Amino acid sequence: MFVLGIDPGLSLTGYGIVEAGRPLRAVAAGVVRTNPEAPISDRLAELFDDLSAVIAEFRPEEAAIEEVFVNRNLQTAMSVGRASGVAILAAARAGLRVTEYTPSAVKLAVTGYGDAAKEQVQTMVARRLGLPTAPSPADAADALAVALCHLQATGLRGLIGGRS
Amino acid sequence: MFVLGIDPGLSLTGYGIVEAGRPLRAVAAGVVRTNPEAPISDRLAELFDDLSAVIAEFRPEEAAIEEVFVNRNLQTAMSVGRASGVAILAAARAGLRVTEYTPSAVKLAVTGYGDAAKEQVQTMVARRLGLPTAPSPADAADALAVALCHLQATGLRGLIGGRS
Repeated sequence: MFVLGIDPGLSLTGYGIVEAGRPLRAVAAGVVRTNPEAPISDRLAELFDDLSAVIAEFRPEEAAIEEVFVNRNLQTAMSVGRASGVAILAAARAGLRVTEYTPSAVKLAVTGYGDAAKEQVQTMVARRLGLPTAPSPADAADALAVALCHLQATGLRGLIGGRS
Repeated sequence: MFVLGIDPGLSLTGYGIVEAGRPLRAVAAGVVRTNPEAPISDRLAELFDDLSAVIAEFRPEEAAIEEVFVNRNLQTAMSVGRASGVAILAAARAGLRVTEYTPSAVKLAVTGYGDAAKEQVQTMVARRLGLPTAPSPADAADALAVALCHLQATGLRGLIGGRS
């Protein structure tokens, strides 16, 4: 079973697909970019289409998204919120259940610490998926972390590691 | 020509359709509600579908949306952002150009004051559209205000009132 993790953003949305199993396997990771020069409506349509294409290609059965709390400024919070809404809609339209996780829940699940540094998260993502290095850009690695968090949070973890 | 105004929110999204002309005419105004008990993915899909149905019914040629800056808390900002992204996508998918206006631009256009009270906006919406009272709930009236703002901001206003 494939799980899709999403790290949403208007300019850059990270996605990562992890296959449940033993060992866990990174199936795909990458980013969807939108043209910063384009009108907001075109950018959101681009994000929706590109993420829908990823879903159609890999056919994940569940999706998880990071609930991003941006405290820098409200304009950025609004952009991330819009991207996040459209990403959730793309998953919902493909029939996927979407679960949200806070950044600290993702960090806790992946590293064991809710306030882990970004680098620690990336190192642990690579280690847990048996990758030589963390996928780049960071948004793709973060999306894999969200998928790992979901696998750990759901009963699936029992299925994966329960027989050791 | 019909203009669609949108006042986005996750629980309640106001919409208002105004026909350009002399006099300006309110064609429709109402709200799209989503079930607060439902998962976020269902709520966003519901908002997308219901707003798409309004667009299909009235066939506006342009859309305008209020860029809502919520300073109460980030959780609310995130909800409004998601609803706003999905509303913009619904308009874009129907081929509409979407223009954004800040709350103060809408107030300025409708009442002449950028920091007008909500009640003044509603009173002026009713007056300018020849309605006996402002449409209720307030979100529907606010959406009409956004449509009026767009008509005023674009060259259309010249076409409407230029011959007096």
